[in-house]
Amino acid sequence: MKKISKNPITNKDYHIPDKLDDSASLKEFIENNSNNPVVVVQGLGFVGAVMSLVCANAVNKDYAVIGIDLPTEESYWKIASLNDGHFPVTSSDPKVKTFYEQSRKKGNLFATYDNIAYQLADVIIVDINLDVQKESSTEGDLTDYNVDLSSFKSAIKAIGENAKENVLILIETTVPPGTTRLAAEIISEEYSKRGISFENVSIGHSYERVMPGPNYIDSIQNFYRVYSGIDEKSANETESFLRTIIKTEEYPLTRLGNTNATEISKVLENSYRAMNISFIVEWSRFAEEAGVNLYEVIDAIRMRPTHKNIMLPGIGVGGYCLTKDPLLASWAKQNLVNTDKDYLPMSEMAVLTNDKMPLYAFNFLESFYKKGKLKDKKVKLYGVSYLAGVGDTRYSPVETFYKLLINQGALVSLHDPYVSFWEEFGIDVNQDMYNFDEETSIVIFSTGHSEYIGNDKLISHLNNQEKLFIYDTIGILDENEINLLSKKHTVKVLGRGDI
Amino acid sequence: MKKISKNPITNKDYHIPDKLDDSASLKEFIENNSNNPVVVVQGLGFVGAVMSLVCANAVNKDYAVIGIDLPTEESYWKIASLNDGHFPVTSSDPKVKTFYEQSRKKGNLFATYDNIAYQLADVIIVDINLDVQKESSTEGDLTDYNVDLSSFKSAIKAIGENAKENVLILIETTVPPGTTRLAAEIISEEYSKRGISFENVSIGHSYERVMPGPNYIDSIQNFYRVYSGIDEKSANETESFLRTIIKTEEYPLTRLGNTNATEISKVLENSYRAMNISFIVEWSRFAEEAGVNLYEVIDAIRMRPTHKNIMLPGIGVGGYCLTKDPLLASWAKQNLVNTDKDYLPMSEMAVLTNDKMPLYAFNFLESFYKKGKLKDKKVKLYGVSYLAGVGDTRYSPVETFYKLLINQGALVSLHDPYVSFWEEFGIDVNQDMYNFDEETSIVIFSTGHSEYIGNDKLISHLNNQEKLFIYDTIGILDENEINLLSKKHTVKVLGRGDI
Repeated sequence: MKKISKNPITNKDYHIPDKLDDSASLKEFIENNSNNPVVVVQGLGFVGAVMSLVCANAVNKDYAVIGIDLPTEESYWKIASLNDGHFPVTSSDPKVKTFYEQSRKKGNLFATYDNIAYQLADVIIVDINLDVQKESSTEGDLTDYNVDLSSFKSAIKAIGENAKENVLILIETTVPPGTTRLAAEIISEEYSKRGISFENVSIGHSYERVMPGPNYIDSIQNFYRVYSGIDEKSANETESFLRTIIKTEEYPLTRLGNTNATEISKVLENSYRAMNISFIVEWSRFAEEAGVNLYEVIDAIRMRPTHKNIMLPGIGVGGYCLTKDPLLASWAKQNLVNTDKDYLPMSEMAVLTNDKMPLYAFNFLESFYKKGKLKDKKVKLYGVSYLAGVGDTRYSPVETFYKLLINQGALVSLHDPYVSFWEEFGIDVNQDMYNFDEETSIVIFSTGHSEYIGNDKLISHLNNQEKLFIYDTIGILDENEINLLSKKHTVKVLGRGDI
Repeated sequence: MKKISKNPITNKDYHIPDKLDDSASLKEFIENNSNNPVVVVQGLGFVGAVMSLVCANAVNKDYAVIGIDLPTEESYWKIASLNDGHFPVTSSDPKVKTFYEQSRKKGNLFATYDNIAYQLADVIIVDINLDVQKESSTEGDLTDYNVDLSSFKSAIKAIGENAKENVLILIETTVPPGTTRLAAEIISEEYSKRGISFENVSIGHSYERVMPGPNYIDSIQNFYRVYSGIDEKSANETESFLRTIIKTEEYPLTRLGNTNATEISKVLENSYRAMNISFIVEWSRFAEEAGVNLYEVIDAIRMRPTHKNIMLPGIGVGGYCLTKDPLLASWAKQNLVNTDKDYLPMSEMAVLTNDKMPLYAFNFLESFYKKGKLKDKKVKLYGVSYLAGVGDTRYSPVETFYKLLINQGALVSLHDPYVSFWEEFGIDVNQDMYNFDEETSIVIFSTGHSEYIGNDKLISHLNNQEKLFIYDTIGILDENEINLLSKKHTVKVLGRGDI
């Protein structure tokens, strides 16, 4: 029986070929792009797929771009779809569509599973995932974690086994600091096995700051970049390449001293945000106890330029980065960079605290519905994605919150304008904001989508229902809306005690 | 024998009067200012003294201003000096002198120890200290702490015993959240004892954001303010008063919902900063181990608007605010606002971590001078104040660092352009940057005074010495200076591993 890989966006099935040989197609693609340097992007996920578009539409150079991923059930559809006219990532950014169409027209973008692509590459960009294995308690908090480098190492080894003598390998993956040096060792070893010189290989590290959403392309092409190389030649080659794909005149590049520095820079950026969020968690509870509206307080504090980055309270921290990057750093400190086993206590505590946020948000709800009282209650949940304006549910805090509701026997109906199918639970998500079971007794705002904000129709729709308990976990209701709703319903906001 | 109180700035002695009755002088002062409302400022410290200047030079009102402090050896000189033509606070801000001279000319500023001043007041501003009693280990870290409200309560009681029926009492002191409500109870009780109505008393809370240094006056008169009142009338009265002393058209006021909110806002502001510093401590060590220049990394990260407030590594956190305000908050959460005894773990951890920073900075030094090797070493220490550009040594991290040096038998010579006498140790501080014992073997930069930054003369002076160990604990040396110095000397920077 043929193995099938399904595109979850189009629902189309693709057969994974039995004989894994894509050399003929690759040869044809190269012949059609014979004058252009070849860029191979390893990994066609949320970063790699869009990165391949940015390279295929480079600001001042013509590249032949090959995306490469694995011929597995999970990933093969990305390869097949990309060649089939369906870009494997959905986005609200219209530039994604334009860039994809332009590259189709030029014929300079192709996807494959075949490692011989590395043999053709002048530049190889590493955009594969590097996950943290987190052991979480049933309540969502971190109990243990581990970083397994083996699949990352295999991917690097595949490059080492195939790449040319004269190649730039650019690692963009968020890695535990120390990993690029490790990758260089692996590649050098493979070159030595093949009996060819490693001398002209350049290896750089430059992390992306991709923001899925309306500025997806611009978050690569029009944004500041930090880069480094394993030696000066590598740093120079990395710089030259980045200048061809990023508008560096408006967004100057920053070179750091070594690859550990850029790797630390990336995880420090995300740890800083994770920590700032976790810090506000304890103040959120304090504010509730003191009868204080913390949103109002934070607005006042943010007027000071030195305090602009202070975060707001909320239901939790989600997404692929903030939930793991502090752990990548702490793991690297103990296992890659140093052997003294000292970890990063505040950074780990940030993840621990943030993982508990949905539980706290749920406890806040339960303090109004004493244990057991949620059973058979009809709940309308607005928002399942981890971030406003995107359809990404990976590590969404709403996931934990939803599980807690279900465990208490609540009957939950979902809405999200960006998510029609919640993969983590295999359930459909309603697309009609006003679709309302008349027995609904609890309404919860769990993602700050702009569709919910300042929406008069939604407010009056809620006011047409029987008495509701309205729970805003992210502070999207303003003073007027709260006053309007409070006339009929009970309104509670996480991080506010004075309603 | 008469008790004496010495002005440490002018060295002049003042006799504390035996008979504590200042009514005649107060009467005369009021007669000379008969048309103007009376503002009494309670406390003539770093905030109150300058606040009294700002009121005496209000932007659109003429006030008669009375500063009040205690007739003790520690404080009486402030009263006497202020009346004697010597403002009790030194500052690099020229406006302090101008404002003081203007108020002398107008004759609308007077200081007293006599509580009858409260009887004359239309507005009373509370600017007294409220300290945290910290138990620290010999290594400088927090082991226990307590907040004793008794002297604050006495000061409030003195107001309640004397103030008029129609008065605005504005608390500016940084207090544990919940304290303004407590103060209102105390005052109301005293009014009731005196058999007079409390109805027309307004009580507000509005914290200052005073920055001693070149913009001392502007940090009050030209800066955003947050305020609240115990009721709406109080909030309105507070607003009206603040509009007369602050340029609110350029720096709009923000009213918060209640006094707990403004009190939380203040301690949250400072806790946010304390926490951001403590967070970078662990990354500083990580960077050193990984051979990374963390200053360079942070410069790169700060290019992102969402990351502008990320802090730099350093020798520690000092001054009156960041070292205690997170503890005021945590204490209030357990003792004033709530009774569940839950504290604020991250905020307390921030203080704990920051208190240990000088110890870490010292350990870094000792890692080059193995234990015992510092004995009889001549050390030149540049900077003893807690902050660049000011002469304030209260809770300076250099204090802990200096103790550790002395305990190891090092012979330390001090320099600070803003401090001629280090009160905490009772020792003189050299004012000549180039005064150099030729046997000096260690040079340490411990405060980031602008006088040390980009100072070519200092660099070449250091290069004229015998081989030195130069230790920059705050990252003030730039790349060129490090290269220049490294030719002859050994240079180490805290938070940098790649020199």
